[in-house]
Amino acid sequence: MSITAQTPMQDLEARLSPGALVTDRDIIDSYAVDRALFCPAGQALALVRARTVDDVAAVMVFATEHRIPVVTQGARTGLSGAANAVDGCLLLNVAGMDEILEIDAVNQTCRVQPGVINQDLKTVLAEHGLSYPPDPGSVAISTIGGNVATNAGGMCCVKYGVTKDYVRAMTVVLADGTVTKLGRQTAKGVAGLDLAALFVGSEGTLGTIVEVTLALKPALPSPITAVGMFPDTESAGRTVTEFMGSGASPSLLELLDGPTVKMVNAYGDFGLPDDVGALLLVQSNAKGAGAVEELEAFQRVAEANGSSEVFVSDDPADSEMLVAARRAVGPAMEKYAHTRGGGELIDDVCVPRSALGEFFEKLRLIDARFDVEVATAGHAGDGNMHPSVVFDAGDEDQVSQAQEAFAAIMQLGLDLGGTITGEHGVGYLKREWLSNELDAGALLMHQQIKDAIDPSGILNPGKMLG
Amino acid sequence: MSITAQTPMQDLEARLSPGALVTDRDIIDSYAVDRALFCPAGQALALVRARTVDDVAAVMVFATEHRIPVVTQGARTGLSGAANAVDGCLLLNVAGMDEILEIDAVNQTCRVQPGVINQDLKTVLAEHGLSYPPDPGSVAISTIGGNVATNAGGMCCVKYGVTKDYVRAMTVVLADGTVTKLGRQTAKGVAGLDLAALFVGSEGTLGTIVEVTLALKPALPSPITAVGMFPDTESAGRTVTEFMGSGASPSLLELLDGPTVKMVNAYGDFGLPDDVGALLLVQSNAKGAGAVEELEAFQRVAEANGSSEVFVSDDPADSEMLVAARRAVGPAMEKYAHTRGGGELIDDVCVPRSALGEFFEKLRLIDARFDVEVATAGHAGDGNMHPSVVFDAGDEDQVSQAQEAFAAIMQLGLDLGGTITGEHGVGYLKREWLSNELDAGALLMHQQIKDAIDPSGILNPGKMLG
Repeated sequence: MSITAQTPMQDLEARLSPGALVTDRDIIDSYAVDRALFCPAGQALALVRARTVDDVAAVMVFATEHRIPVVTQGARTGLSGAANAVDGCLLLNVAGMDEILEIDAVNQTCRVQPGVINQDLKTVLAEHGLSYPPDPGSVAISTIGGNVATNAGGMCCVKYGVTKDYVRAMTVVLADGTVTKLGRQTAKGVAGLDLAALFVGSEGTLGTIVEVTLALKPALPSPITAVGMFPDTESAGRTVTEFMGSGASPSLLELLDGPTVKMVNAYGDFGLPDDVGALLLVQSNAKGAGAVEELEAFQRVAEANGSSEVFVSDDPADSEMLVAARRAVGPAMEKYAHTRGGGELIDDVCVPRSALGEFFEKLRLIDARFDVEVATAGHAGDGNMHPSVVFDAGDEDQVSQAQEAFAAIMQLGLDLGGTITGEHGVGYLKREWLSNELDAGALLMHQQIKDAIDPSGILNPGKMLG
Repeated sequence: MSITAQTPMQDLEARLSPGALVTDRDIIDSYAVDRALFCPAGQALALVRARTVDDVAAVMVFATEHRIPVVTQGARTGLSGAANAVDGCLLLNVAGMDEILEIDAVNQTCRVQPGVINQDLKTVLAEHGLSYPPDPGSVAISTIGGNVATNAGGMCCVKYGVTKDYVRAMTVVLADGTVTKLGRQTAKGVAGLDLAALFVGSEGTLGTIVEVTLALKPALPSPITAVGMFPDTESAGRTVTEFMGSGASPSLLELLDGPTVKMVNAYGDFGLPDDVGALLLVQSNAKGAGAVEELEAFQRVAEANGSSEVFVSDDPADSEMLVAARRAVGPAMEKYAHTRGGGELIDDVCVPRSALGEFFEKLRLIDARFDVEVATAGHAGDGNMHPSVVFDAGDEDQVSQAQEAFAAIMQLGLDLGGTITGEHGVGYLKREWLSNELDAGALLMHQQIKDAIDPSGILNPGKMLG
C-alpha cells in the first residue's frame, strides 16, 4: 500500500463538482480579463467553473486555507477590470450557475442564480406579464450576478431606477466559506443593518453572490418616441436640465453627440440625420394621454433651447429603431475606433442634471486640449454621461494623451459635484481615483469593513480599494 | 494664582455651544425614553442638545476619550426603544438641528439637518411643487434624521417606497469624532461601497447623522378613494393578495380590522361603518382614467372575495377623511387601551403579500390563545401589519400574556417567510429576536461591522445587536 501525496490542486479538485476545476493554461488565460482597457491581468493559478453553491464554498475554504486570492466572475462584460485575474488567484466563474429558480407572480419577485443573463430573465418574465427593468448596455450578455455586484444601470434608470432598487435578498458565500442570507423576501423590512445593500456594488470584494431575490414590476407599458436635433451638446444638455427639472418622468432620455451619431450612421441605417451637433432620444410610457403630453412638453423645452427639429412618433417600429440606434453606439464606436488605431476608453461620469450644459462646455475644452477624439453618448436624463476617448493604441503619445483626457473627464465630473462612475464601477480602472471622490473618513470605513468581512484580504484584492 | 481642576462635565461643556449641555436631572430623565413599551431606560449621565455638527463631533471625541456610551435621539417618537437612555450614557439629542439647508428644484433634491420634522419638510416642499413621499404614522412629529436612522415607512410605501429609496447622501459623525460624507448628490453613482445605505436603518449604532440629501418627487397627484367592507380579515387579506398580484399600483392600501374600526369610531366620526369584520382603504392617484380603472378593478376583486360593499369617491373631502381615519388609529387605540388598563404593544411584522389570508387565519388563533385583545391595522398593500396587543398593564398575568402574544405574532411573521419588523426597527424591543430572523453568518457580519466602525462600542450599546 502506498500513499501518494496529493497536490493542492488535486485536493481542490476533489472538493468540487466533476470538471469544475480547469488547470489548462490556455483556457485559464482566456478567462483572465473583462472588457476594460488598460487594466492589466495577472496570471491565475486555476479556473473554477462553479456549478453549485457548494463549489463556491469549497473554493472559499480552500482559498482561505492557502491564502489564495479569489476573483469572482460572471460573463466578464464589465468595463472596469473588476473581473480581471490577479497573480496567483483562483478565477471563480459563476456564469454556469444560470437557473431561474422561482418566479412568484403574486408577490412579483423572482429568485435567480447569479449566472442568469439579464435579457434571458427579461424574456422569461415577459411570458408571465412581468418585467425586471434594469437594462445595462450589456443587457444581452451580462449576468444578474454581475449586474448586482456592480449595481448596473442602463437606459431605464431615469424612470425605473438601478439594480439596487430591485434587490430584495441575496445569498452570499463569504471568504471563509460561510453561506449566509442577506435582505428579506418581503416588500419592506428593517431587521438589522441593510447588508444586502452593502453587497450591491461591492465588486466581489466582500463575498460571492450565489442567489438573488429580485423585486419585479408588471410588464412596462409600450412607449412613444421623440428625437430632438440640436446644434450642439450644450443646448441638448440645457434641454435635459430644464425638462427633467420640470418634473418630467420620461421612460428613456438619451444623448448622442455629433461624432457619435456619425459613427452610428456608419455602422447601420437607423434613420438618424448625419449633420447634427447632438441628438436627444426620448420616450414616454405614461398612461393614456400622458405620454403625448410629456413628449409635447419635451418638444417645447427643446425648441426653446435651440433644437432645430423634434420628431415625435407613436409607431412602435420607430420606438424599436430608436432603442436599436442607441444600443448600436457601443459596437459603432468600437468599429470606428478600430479604424483609428483601436484605442477606446469609455468614461462614466455622472453629474447633477443642473450641470449638464456646463459639463458639455468644459468637455469641449478637454476634447480640444488633447490630441484624441472624444465622442459622447449617455443616459442624459440621469446626468450619467459616457464620453469615449478614441485614439491610436499603437502610438505611445496617443495612449498617454488618451489617459490624460480620461482623467480630465473624471475630474470634470467631480468639479461639477458629480461622481467618477455612475454605473460601470471602480474595479481596477478607477481605483486610484476613488480617493479623489471620497473623503478620508469614508475611505477608512471602506478599509475597516473590508478587513472585518474579509480578514485575509483574499477577495478580489487590488480592486476598488487599490 | 490658583488652578482649579476641571470636572469632566465642565470640560465637555467648554467644548460645546453655550447651553447645549444639560445636567439637570429632571430634564435629563425627561429625555430618557421614546414611545416603546417594556423597554427599560437607564440613567443618563447628561443630555446634550446639539446645535451644530461641531457639537456632535465634540460629544463623540469626549465620549471616546472617556469610554462613555452615546445614545443619539431626535424627537423620540420611535416604537422600539432605540432612543432610550442606557446607564451612564450621554443623550445626544439632535432635534434642535432643524434647518432645511437647500431645496434644489432643478435636481429635485434637498439637503436637511436631522432634526427637521417630516411634515414640516413636506409643507415647505409643497410650496416648490415638490414632495418627499415617506409618511410614517409619526409624520407630524418625527424627524428626518430619525426616519433615516430607522428607514421609516408609512402609507405611501406601497407605491412610493420607503425612506432608503430617497436617501442620496448623508454626513455622519463617527464614534471618534470623524465627520464624513457618504453617498452621492447625483441620480446615479457607484464609487465604492454603498455606505449611505448601510447607515440607513442603523439605529444610531454606527454613527450620528448630521445632514441628509434626499431625492424628491414632483408634487404627487391627488388620489381618488375607495373603502371596501369585509366580513372578516381573511377575506380582506385575500383581496389584497389578489389585487396586488394583478400588478395594481394603488397609492394607499390600508387595512383596519373590526376591533380597530370600533376604536376609531369611538374616537371620532370619520364616517366608517361600525359593524364590519375588516375594512380596506384604497387610493389611486394614477393619471387620467387610470385611477377610476384601478379602483374599479379593486372593487371587482373585493366583491369576488366576499366584500359586502365597496364605496368609491372622487371627492377630495372623502379622501382626506379616509386618511384622517387611518391616522386616527394610533390615538384611538391609545384611548381604548387606557380604558383597559393602559397596556398596548404595537407589533410590526411584514409578510409576503401572498400570505396575508393565512396570516389573518393564524392571527385569529393567537388572539384566541391569549387572554388579551388583538386589534390590527396596517399597510396591507406591502404585507406590513401592525397587530396591537391591548391589555391591563397593572395585571402581572396580563402583562405576561401580552408579551407572549407579541412574540407569537413575530414568530408567525417569520413562519410565513416574513420579518419581525417592517418599519419600526429592532431597537431594544426586538433585539433578542434578531437572531431568530438572521442566520449565524449575517449576525456575525453585523458584529464585525459594528466592531470595525465603532471599536469602543460606545454607540447605542445594547440596541439592535443586543
